[in-house]
Amino acid sequence: MRTTTDADDLRVVVNAAVSVDGKLSTQKRTQVAISGDADFDRVDQIRAESDAVMVGVGTVLADDPRLRVKDNGRRMARQDRGEPPHPARIVADSRARTPDDAALFEDHAQTYLLVSEAAPADRVERLRAAGATVFTAGTDRVDLAGGLGQLAATGAEQILVEGGGEIIFSLFEQGLVDRLSVYVGSMVIGGRDAPTLADGEGFVDDLSTLSLQTVNRLGDGVVLTYGVSPKSLLKAEKTIDRD
Amino acid sequence: MRTTTDADDLRVVVNAAVSVDGKLSTQKRTQVAISGDADFDRVDQIRAESDAVMVGVGTVLADDPRLRVKDNGRRMARQDRGEPPHPARIVADSRARTPDDAALFEDHAQTYLLVSEAAPADRVERLRAAGATVFTAGTDRVDLAGGLGQLAATGAEQILVEGGGEIIFSLFEQGLVDRLSVYVGSMVIGGRDAPTLADGEGFVDDLSTLSLQTVNRLGDGVVLTYGVSPKSLLKAEKTIDRD
Repeated sequence: MRTTTDADDLRVVVNAAVSVDGKLSTQKRTQVAISGDADFDRVDQIRAESDAVMVGVGTVLADDPRLRVKDNGRRMARQDRGEPPHPARIVADSRARTPDDAALFEDHAQTYLLVSEAAPADRVERLRAAGATVFTAGTDRVDLAGGLGQLAATGAEQILVEGGGEIIFSLFEQGLVDRLSVYVGSMVIGGRDAPTLADGEGFVDDLSTLSLQTVNRLGDGVVLTYGVSPKSLLKAEKTIDRD
Repeated sequence: MRTTTDADDLRVVVNAAVSVDGKLSTQKRTQVAISGDADFDRVDQIRAESDAVMVGVGTVLADDPRLRVKDNGRRMARQDRGEPPHPARIVADSRARTPDDAALFEDHAQTYLLVSEAAPADRVERLRAAGATVFTAGTDRVDLAGGLGQLAATGAEQILVEGGGEIIFSLFEQGLVDRLSVYVGSMVIGGRDAPTLADGEGFVDDLSTLSLQTVNRLGDGVVLTYGVSPKSLLKAEKTIDRD
């Protein structure tokens, strides 16, 4: 985290599973098991090490995830450290569109909603009643740096972002990502409208460059991990190859 | 190649360089050097081993590539084998939109255009005059299996497909791909409208599954190679994970 003082101590880790063509799911947003048990376990470990797991509201609406730690030993280890068994959940949700019967509210982990000032007050109240802690930052769209700064102020040190492509791109665009891990599954999903690891408007002039750290085969695919350094924007024009 | 008898002996190799989010270029289609010299050399070797290099017309219009073998030793080795110094070029170009002053026509390698019956006759004639050999297959869109079958009949044994995402998806959709190699560059390009490795309509129910063969760090990135077996379509619905 680099853009606000409050959030400077928060480590933002992005993880996703993509097809070899960079897709998170099909163009109809149907979930696909791109990875497998070995990768689910790898991600479970990162969840267990994190104070909160973050998704965009699009992921909540499409998949209704629980974002829990599945391994009992990891939950117990968290409790031995004085932490709740599951990390908190964070939904970036500018307009407070999270359903108040979302699976996120089914158990007792803390759920934070990052909303903008444009979120309807009645929606915000219903979600508070459902159990959410609401942080407001930004006028029309949620100000992620500001929202994460409020989260850091609660004592959170690491958050794991699990998608989708809109929030992941926004975090890269704002220079808020510290680490990226990607499981590249051995399949082609295709589709010019299928969601990818990083959607949004996209970079044109300055790309976000990464530092490749590890490359490991896992199951039928590959896990790639990257560091993201603060000044990692690359001028696209300088990199043209014309042949 | 599996869908036509004529093309059964043609090996179709797809190669592309993508960002970690699966993009071939920015949403403005500006070229980005996703890989580097080591990967350019790797691709040059595959070009040198191929009878023809294929792209979609979108790539011709965006990049105006030459698709030549750059290394002199490889060109000489081709000539020692009785082959032309450069592989032939193939443009999948349903409507014959390739400009007749395209860089492809600047030297003496053979250029094939695969067009559909919907290609305007005057355009086809101009491109023939510019030096292209035109194969017609399909009514409205080019029938790739048919066009590649005509190419196989000329004696071609291996073609290298270098993009873009529309033709690559079409080839996967029709079960025409034998091998895939992908350079995953250490950068995020982003953009829901940026071209990806496999665009088109995308798979929904049956995905194209791959068999991971090799994983190699190269330069700042990773090269992944895959085999594609004939019956490699996976039901998406069977693979759902709900957590």
